[in-house]
Amino acid sequence: MAHEITVTRRVEFSETDMAGIMHFSNYFRFMETAEHAFLRSLGLSVVLSRLDPALCLPRVHAECDFSSPLRFEDEVEIHLLVAGKSSRSLSYLFRFYRRDAGHRREVARGAMKVACAARQPDGTLKSAPLPAALAERIQIAPAQALAFHSTTT
Amino acid sequence: MAHEITVTRRVEFSETDMAGIMHFSNYFRFMETAEHAFLRSLGLSVVLSRLDPALCLPRVHAECDFSSPLRFEDEVEIHLLVAGKSSRSLSYLFRFYRRDAGHRREVARGAMKVACAARQPDGTLKSAPLPAALAERIQIAPAQALAFHSTTT
Amino acid sequence: MAHEITVTRRVEFSETDMAGIMHFSNYFRFMETAEHAFLRSLGLSVVLSRLDPALCLPRVHAECDFSSPLRFEDEVEIHLLVAGKSSRSLSYLFRFYRRDAGHRREVARGAMKVACAARQPDGTLKSAPLPAALAERIQIAPAQALAFHSTTT
Amino acid sequence: MAHEITVTRRVEFSETDMAGIMHFSNYFRFMETAEHAFLRSLGLSVVLSRLDPALCLPRVHAECDFSSPLRFEDEVEIHLLVAGKSSRSLSYLFRFYRRDAGHRREVARGAMKVACAARQPDGTLKSAPLPAALAERIQIAPAQALAFHSTTT
Repeated sequence: MAHEITVTRRVEFSETDMAGIMHFSNYFRFMETAEHAFLRSLGLSVVLSRLDPALCLPRVHAECDFSSPLRFEDEVEIHLLVAGKSSRSLSYLFRFYRRDAGHRREVARGAMKVACAARQPDGTLKSAPLPAALAERIQIAPAQALAFHSTTT
Repeated sequence: MAHEITVTRRVEFSETDMAGIMHFSNYFRFMETAEHAFLRSLGLSVVLSRLDPALCLPRVHAECDFSSPLRFEDEVEIHLLVAGKSSRSLSYLFRFYRRDAGHRREVARGAMKVACAARQPDGTLKSAPLPAALAERIQIAPAQALAFHSTTT
Repeated sequence: MAHEITVTRRVEFSETDMAGIMHFSNYFRFMETAEHAFLRSLGLSVVLSRLDPALCLPRVHAECDFSSPLRFEDEVEIHLLVAGKSSRSLSYLFRFYRRDAGHRREVARGAMKVACAARQPDGTLKSAPLPAALAERIQIAPAQALAFHSTTT
Repeated sequence: MAHEITVTRRVEFSETDMAGIMHFSNYFRFMETAEHAFLRSLGLSVVLSRLDPALCLPRVHAECDFSSPLRFEDEVEIHLLVAGKSSRSLSYLFRFYRRDAGHRREVARGAMKVACAARQPDGTLKSAPLPAALAERIQIAPAQALAFHSTTT
């Protein structure tokens, strides 16, 4: 049973924009990167697309608050916390930290809700229950961890 | 004075993912595309980066609710509405519609808040008031339009 | 029978990088955008993925020479020319032009070769002949047009 | 003095496309990732943009041959080799390998040429000599290594 993970990612040149900072759409890609690392840490990530029918986790909601920019080559720590779980969906909270000479500074906070869907032969997606392997290994984070996530810096 | 715009964009192949649908991070890029078309429609877009110091509009908050997937080659209508304006920030609401044989179907809703910042010689960003040209030409949408945006489909 | 197309695309903010110019990886996305517009103009684009088995056109080779940068909001004209056709592959040449006040200036040149592949039930790709609909409607450009493409500016 | 580097990168979900494989434009992003890791290994990467005037390395040419697809979560080894150096430019060769259970299989080969440019106050780029720090620490790979890169698998 797991409820969190922290991954590290370096901001790549192609992720910056002409304002000299990381383009904000990439924070959403980073949230997903953390989610997949989380599933992979439970032995689950690749499995989903190899089931029959193949399952996927389309996003239902995503949001992010940006407090300080990230720049090229910044090392970013992305912390994922499981905030909710139902029979057909998962909710995550995220915090982004910039690492700098041993310190880390929070730069953004996010949230995401994903639903489970089965890919039909015609390519359409149909709501489906989370597979047992997923439901059994993922749990909602303890109240204390979630409370911390809701506080302001 | 303007408070809205609608732009159309076709989903490109590189914007899809292995689930066969448009990757969710691109909805955020599309919101920004609509924002820049809005600024451009007011003769403002390119201006910002040519001021001295150059101004930019870093995102403070962004969110999106996804109700139905978009696929390769779908024609998407993105509707932007100005929901808030302060001396240093702007807030937008968005609705995404998939066009299909004369009809259109809502597929997502978003919101975004941007702040005005001046780019310092050392590359850092510093909060700044919205330039007069922007503040004068952009207005908050009428209450009725905003109310519509808050209703469920 | 067709052998060329010209499409126009505006450089989006998210396509720029911290050097203030369009990131070079996007030229390759633009080539593909032109290719899909070309296939669409022949009524072919979406068809491929709806065949059974689904066909796709994985890239075998891609290259680009960059002579002048593109910037945010530049209007880019992308010209595609069919340079080669075999039973299982297509080759294209590309020229990129920046439109500016009625003039246009060449800023880049590209080339791409794609092969036809059938997507197997296990997700792997297997070489396949170009479908008849494609082979019949696409032709190699006249020698004169190809010669022009090979000249230096 | 250095002439090569190998970096490893995992294919992210957002880098796949609806054909179920990594979108080809990302190979070009990966080449640049390897280039920046190379510069960083020499203590040079961030330095460039902090010089006055800021220097950047716009791409003059980029190409890639794709022999086998990469998929979501594949671990990719990117090998960079310095193939050329002049007073104002650098040329690299790349090989991409997919790691699989202790083995690695070549999946693509690339090449890239970059020029040195100084960013002018008005945002335009002007050709410039490679800074001494760069020219002194980077050398062309030995003939044997370059010969290997030119052979077919």
